[in-house]
Amino acid sequence: MSTIAFIGLGNMGGPMALNLVKAGHTVRVFDLNEQAVHELAEQGAIPCHTSCGAVAGAEVAITMLPAGVHVRSLYLGQGEERGLLAKAAADTLLIDCSTIDAASALAVSDAANQAGLAFVDAPVSGGTAGAAAGTLTFICGGSDAGFARAKPILADMGANIFHAGGPGAGQVAKICNNMLLSVLMIGTSEALQLGRDHGLDPAVLSEIMKVSSGGNWTLEKYNPCPDVMANVPASNGYQGGFMVDLMSKDLGLAMETAGQSRSATPMGALATSLYRQHARRGNGKRDFSSIFETFGQDQSE
Amino acid sequence: MSTIAFIGLGNMGGPMALNLVKAGHTVRVFDLNEQAVHELAEQGAIPCHTSCGAVAGAEVAITMLPAGVHVRSLYLGQGEERGLLAKAAADTLLIDCSTIDAASALAVSDAANQAGLAFVDAPVSGGTAGAAAGTLTFICGGSDAGFARAKPILADMGANIFHAGGPGAGQVAKICNNMLLSVLMIGTSEALQLGRDHGLDPAVLSEIMKVSSGGNWTLEKYNPCPDVMANVPASNGYQGGFMVDLMSKDLGLAMETAGQSRSATPMGALATSLYRQHARRGNGKRDFSSIFETFGQDQSE
Amino acid sequence: MSTIAFIGLGNMGGPMALNLVKAGHTVRVFDLNEQAVHELAEQGAIPCHTSCGAVAGAEVAITMLPAGVHVRSLYLGQGEERGLLAKAAADTLLIDCSTIDAASALAVSDAANQAGLAFVDAPVSGGTAGAAAGTLTFICGGSDAGFARAKPILADMGANIFHAGGPGAGQVAKICNNMLLSVLMIGTSEALQLGRDHGLDPAVLSEIMKVSSGGNWTLEKYNPCPDVMANVPASNGYQGGFMVDLMSKDLGLAMETAGQSRSATPMGALATSLYRQHARRGNGKRDFSSIFETFGQDQSE
Amino acid sequence: MSTIAFIGLGNMGGPMALNLVKAGHTVRVFDLNEQAVHELAEQGAIPCHTSCGAVAGAEVAITMLPAGVHVRSLYLGQGEERGLLAKAAADTLLIDCSTIDAASALAVSDAANQAGLAFVDAPVSGGTAGAAAGTLTFICGGSDAGFARAKPILADMGANIFHAGGPGAGQVAKICNNMLLSVLMIGTSEALQLGRDHGLDPAVLSEIMKVSSGGNWTLEKYNPCPDVMANVPASNGYQGGFMVDLMSKDLGLAMETAGQSRSATPMGALATSLYRQHARRGNGKRDFSSIFETFGQDQSE
Repeated sequence: MSTIAFIGLGNMGGPMALNLVKAGHTVRVFDLNEQAVHELAEQGAIPCHTSCGAVAGAEVAITMLPAGVHVRSLYLGQGEERGLLAKAAADTLLIDCSTIDAASALAVSDAANQAGLAFVDAPVSGGTAGAAAGTLTFICGGSDAGFARAKPILADMGANIFHAGGPGAGQVAKICNNMLLSVLMIGTSEALQLGRDHGLDPAVLSEIMKVSSGGNWTLEKYNPCPDVMANVPASNGYQGGFMVDLMSKDLGLAMETAGQSRSATPMGALATSLYRQHARRGNGKRDFSSIFETFGQDQSE
Repeated sequence: MSTIAFIGLGNMGGPMALNLVKAGHTVRVFDLNEQAVHELAEQGAIPCHTSCGAVAGAEVAITMLPAGVHVRSLYLGQGEERGLLAKAAADTLLIDCSTIDAASALAVSDAANQAGLAFVDAPVSGGTAGAAAGTLTFICGGSDAGFARAKPILADMGANIFHAGGPGAGQVAKICNNMLLSVLMIGTSEALQLGRDHGLDPAVLSEIMKVSSGGNWTLEKYNPCPDVMANVPASNGYQGGFMVDLMSKDLGLAMETAGQSRSATPMGALATSLYRQHARRGNGKRDFSSIFETFGQDQSE
Repeated sequence: MSTIAFIGLGNMGGPMALNLVKAGHTVRVFDLNEQAVHELAEQGAIPCHTSCGAVAGAEVAITMLPAGVHVRSLYLGQGEERGLLAKAAADTLLIDCSTIDAASALAVSDAANQAGLAFVDAPVSGGTAGAAAGTLTFICGGSDAGFARAKPILADMGANIFHAGGPGAGQVAKICNNMLLSVLMIGTSEALQLGRDHGLDPAVLSEIMKVSSGGNWTLEKYNPCPDVMANVPASNGYQGGFMVDLMSKDLGLAMETAGQSRSATPMGALATSLYRQHARRGNGKRDFSSIFETFGQDQSE
Repeated sequence: MSTIAFIGLGNMGGPMALNLVKAGHTVRVFDLNEQAVHELAEQGAIPCHTSCGAVAGAEVAITMLPAGVHVRSLYLGQGEERGLLAKAAADTLLIDCSTIDAASALAVSDAANQAGLAFVDAPVSGGTAGAAAGTLTFICGGSDAGFARAKPILADMGANIFHAGGPGAGQVAKICNNMLLSVLMIGTSEALQLGRDHGLDPAVLSEIMKVSSGGNWTLEKYNPCPDVMANVPASNGYQGGFMVDLMSKDLGLAMETAGQSRSATPMGALATSLYRQHARRGNGKRDFSSIFETFGQDQSE
């Protein structure tokens, strides 16, 4: 069992930290939101008043923050204030579970390495349900040694732990996957609606495509057409699940990453615009499979 | 065992008819190409000089033709010449295995019904390899009774036989599936190249996405990146497989079908244009996964 | 002055026929809608009870019908009923002003030529306002001789008469133009909204782009952003103008035409899907510049 | 006449600075490339060894640099080194003519204002030919007072000087315009090729669309189809003009800007991917109208 600092106790970070407590680790927690710290403390974590305080004496530091700017600021410092890298003990393993741009992940990783510290970028997927259940997927970037140290810790919070490559590769792999997911979701939606427009039963069409060359994760697990599949957001008014705003955020990171390498992503770029249009019409808090509605029945006839 | 007329003995129809012969049926074959008729006759089929001759005395007539215009002409007649519907015996079951536009399939089906004949549209997927091996997939449209009669015959040529719905539904379901396939292929290609542009190993990225929410048939069976998967066209110079020209034809049918219902298919429409651009650059005879190359390494640096 | 048969007296055809009457021609009119025939008769046209009756004794026959299927049926006949081509006098000039698919225009033109009749396809733009004012644009396809005969007649109904090329070229040129127009409208809309999202005044941005390399017809004549330009639909709740349903119809023809030649039209295809999505949300009867709204302000913040 | 510091003497900056010399200003020049400084000095400019040296005693400082990172670094300093803002005299007017991301322009503008200095972002269009001829277009962002001071100086280098709005608005307006330009170019290309695929003469089709609702800058000034228009890159092997790599850079800025505001730009995003694919096939140094070739004749037939 390790002493682990956990910084960032939001909807995802809170239950993740709790799973580490349950696994028997000593978990030192910090968040700007004192209430979140208090709640974790009641369940066995050690409350800390600053991120530095949390890291003091920890073998591993895990961060779960909203965006690259927060990660850079926390690790690298800002203005006069020095960051975690300047304060962490010599052999602390640093694991950032935030989903951020690859450039920020690389910048922090480089600075960590210069400070003699191992850094692993380990963005997650699986949502708040996976965080609570400890069944998250972690997609990691970093050295083999860093990954080897991180893996058993991450295994206390997740079911699948992948090593995508060197520093930043976790972030790149995650946004590649999520960009592809957005394409699967929209492509599946328009195929189902095209069939429906010609009188096909979307449940029958889904079954056929699922076992044919159109087969994909959305048909297996997350059918976007209402009432085709039980227990998915589409059959529950598109509530819950993975919000349009979060998909839109990930697509923004994908476009940024593609911009850095001048990569052509016509499908991903189209998905980005369609999701942004959808969000702007007031659907940001609904599940991302609600994009299906934008292909809906012709109301003009 | 039945007496079956088989009309259209091309790259697909030839081996399909042969599998019916091997299954013990009496198969009466016709094609405008006499050589094709001759070859089937040498393997046990009964050669016929006209489509009418083939259909005479047959309980089932199967057609495998290039496009809707040929199917309409054969069944409905053209100019002064009457078609198969006017000549087939009262309870002949008609099965068209061509991939054609749904409107043509509906028109022939309606005319067949008026003539008191059962008609099933049953487009196939699986390519020439599947035709030879008898492992094709048939996606059928038509009445329950028609499908029930067709299924055991089709089972002698294929491994999966689906009933998508009423008349024309087989054609609609097939083009929905193939439109979605084109989107999966392009979306997967651009995601893999985006990762590669940032230093990831496409094989590692493929493994991760395959078991994540980006999972789809192309990652399972048909990875478009060279040397990630053995025994796929991408690892064989994009030879063999499913030609760009055939995907382009199917996407044309999808766009036509979408036009009839004014369905919005932004991803499918983009795939259509990208495949047409690819075909026009001289790639029509290569496998459709060669679209991966269009996202390739930056040559300007 | 000529004797002219005019068939099809709808929102466009009615005022066009009236302008021929006003120009001094003898105009023999027919429409399935008797009321429309009656109204024209009150203004000086000769009412006819059938299309054949209208054409009898006419030097020129002009048709203005909804779609290719009507044009084919009228000229070529249907079933047992013979069409106009079989009934028109030897040197009647046939002018079809309908906007239809190029294949139908070609088929009718070919049949007319075989019957020894000159046929000109002459689709119009300019809307009902242009029809009433006699300021329509005609884009013609046909022989030089046919065009030379048609031009002075068309000049009595329009301000611009173009000769795009041989048979069918009028239809092709019109849908090329309208496909491009849809791209201009959407491209301009998203550029204006992008500027607005960053605090720019859309009127100022419009002025700059209008005289720069972004200059195009929509910025000159038809700004899609409300209150930038007076007397355009955008400043009148997107009422009037050119309906989304009509743009959607023209884009359908463009996609059909592109399908015949396997032409890649990525921008046009995207516009087609965006307009269909827009129409399906209940905007079919609004002006086509209302597509601007789909890029609107973020409602989630 | 003013004393003007000019920093950045590349293909654009060199001839711009020379025009200021010719107009009678005292021009203090600096570039990291000593040869560029030497050449300007031979034509009457005052050579300086550092950017600070150039700015010393200048009433106006003009910068023309490759990207936002250079502009930030020069004005704001980097690491221990202080930037221009810390060294410029109290009432120096700062004009940045670089084309950079709006966020960098805003950051420098804010810092300048805090330092009590007026800053105008004034990206140019018109290319090296316009720079030499003094016919550039400047699109400016900044306060009314700043713009009023900048305008007469810019008029010595250009023909059109626009005031798009407050700080950063020049950059936003320029990328909005150039994003729209890319859409016009591709939309026009595909419309012309669609017509050509159906036998139309692209010159005739261009003439028709130019005066119809498809009219746009590319048809007026920069037809992408070879031999339609004299003296454009398309009629000269797509040499000269505005390089694909530069359009690709501007589209990258547009996508970045759209990402910041989560603006939907489906046409602009598609253009971005199509230009990146084009660049990756080795066309980066050719004129941007060469995108026309990607819609070209079907080579498979």
